[in-house]
Amino acid sequence: MHGSILKVGICQLRTTYDIEKNMSRAIEMTSDAARLGADIVALPEMFLCPYEPDHIKKSMAFASRALEGLRKSALEHGIYIVAGSLPYTRHGGKPFNRSFVFDTGGRVVCFHDKLHLFDCEPPGGPVVRESDIIKEGHHLDTFMTPWGMAAVIVCYDIRFTPLLQLLADRGVVLLFVPAAFSITTGRAHWEMLVRLRAVEIQGFVVGIQPAYDPGLKYVPWGHSIVANPWGDVLMDAGKEEVVEVVDIDMEDAGRIRGSFPLLDHRRLDLYSTEWRDN
Amino acid sequence: MHGSILKVGICQLRTTYDIEKNMSRAIEMTSDAARLGADIVALPEMFLCPYEPDHIKKSMAFASRALEGLRKSALEHGIYIVAGSLPYTRHGGKPFNRSFVFDTGGRVVCFHDKLHLFDCEPPGGPVVRESDIIKEGHHLDTFMTPWGMAAVIVCYDIRFTPLLQLLADRGVVLLFVPAAFSITTGRAHWEMLVRLRAVEIQGFVVGIQPAYDPGLKYVPWGHSIVANPWGDVLMDAGKEEVVEVVDIDMEDAGRIRGSFPLLDHRRLDLYSTEWRDN
Repeated sequence: MHGSILKVGICQLRTTYDIEKNMSRAIEMTSDAARLGADIVALPEMFLCPYEPDHIKKSMAFASRALEGLRKSALEHGIYIVAGSLPYTRHGGKPFNRSFVFDTGGRVVCFHDKLHLFDCEPPGGPVVRESDIIKEGHHLDTFMTPWGMAAVIVCYDIRFTPLLQLLADRGVVLLFVPAAFSITTGRAHWEMLVRLRAVEIQGFVVGIQPAYDPGLKYVPWGHSIVANPWGDVLMDAGKEEVVEVVDIDMEDAGRIRGSFPLLDHRRLDLYSTEWRDN
Repeated sequence: MHGSILKVGICQLRTTYDIEKNMSRAIEMTSDAARLGADIVALPEMFLCPYEPDHIKKSMAFASRALEGLRKSALEHGIYIVAGSLPYTRHGGKPFNRSFVFDTGGRVVCFHDKLHLFDCEPPGGPVVRESDIIKEGHHLDTFMTPWGMAAVIVCYDIRFTPLLQLLADRGVVLLFVPAAFSITTGRAHWEMLVRLRAVEIQGFVVGIQPAYDPGLKYVPWGHSIVANPWGDVLMDAGKEEVVEVVDIDMEDAGRIRGSFPLLDHRRLDLYSTEWRDN
């Protein structure tokens, strides 16, 4: 039996240029989180390496081993693992930026390929052209957990509000967002995005970032955050590498939906957000 | 000829229980803003009275005179006026919560009836049942200005992201949001909402609130805010009654759309937001 309290584990990994080391560290951190009592443990976007094209390409060769290690960790500890994201391709060619979700039996219950690729020059940089090395996804999925309906989207996806409307329509109350916001976009928008998306879906949003490291070319912002349905920050992991476990009370979603019924107040007689089934 | 610099005037009126006085003060503040050089001047939601049902009902009798005074002010000073909102009905019965926009010739170029009525109990109160006294709107409009395409939505409307997607689709780069967030919802969400909506539409958002007044039953948060397309706060009016004029450079919208093309990155092959023409 599961109550309404879910213990979410955040692995704010410090990615280095040693892919082998990042892989071991990521798997180890999921075990650490499990030992701290976590029910669901999450990793950041592209946890195998810094968010830099050459390293992402190199990390492709490690994807299978990393997934196998995380599968075993999920099974061994009886936890869900939201495996951040990694470059994934079945038949060669450009990979997806894919997040896998393992359940307590080590089964893949969901995956998400990043839908919106970050081809941007934020004011203050750095310039990124993700589409040079990554293929965009084409589907949007959810997965049921003992604590409620959940989903994963990746990083830049969080900026696109139609996705959030669609996920809310599908009953999502727990949204994981593995990300790698830089110090520029992180400082400017990260906290607002996580908090306000939680308000909008009337659920919990778990944003997982790599640790800050000024020695990298692409410097991550850190600050993994968990926000409740009122947009309060339940946990901010700060800048350094850390494993954090946070209690969230899933009943808060029902409470806020009762007293502040934002989703019910939508004027679906006037507008709609539709997923085009291709 | 107009350059790309628009001077936006904010009238953060302190509403009292004296409707006649609020009306005169509102008109006077638009003149003050014009004298400070404003091109477009905006008032808060329900500027004729505190946001309380009995007073809103009483204020209906003043709507025509208030609009006539603002029309004259627009014409006299050659400014646009976004006339916050007031209760408006043509044929009796429940009024709309309507915002009128006057152009420099005193013509009504747009109006907006609040689409989402605030029937909520925010954590910490106060409880509001707007639908008891207000009729919900049914249309969404825009108006062209010499500085670009503009629109008005009212208060609670800002929480509903499909509206923002639709307005962005219609080319809106300048969005006015007359509002009356309370100290509860104001503290929790107001600044995030104004800033993030500006990021999402890649334009400017002007949020106009009544001044804070702890002597009122419904205590407004104050803090009228102007945010640029990167979500920076260009002006925060604080708590007290004040007229502020802010320079905004409309070319910032084009610049950000060039380097950080969020609207172009939308996956319109996968999802869409549609307005249902009734």
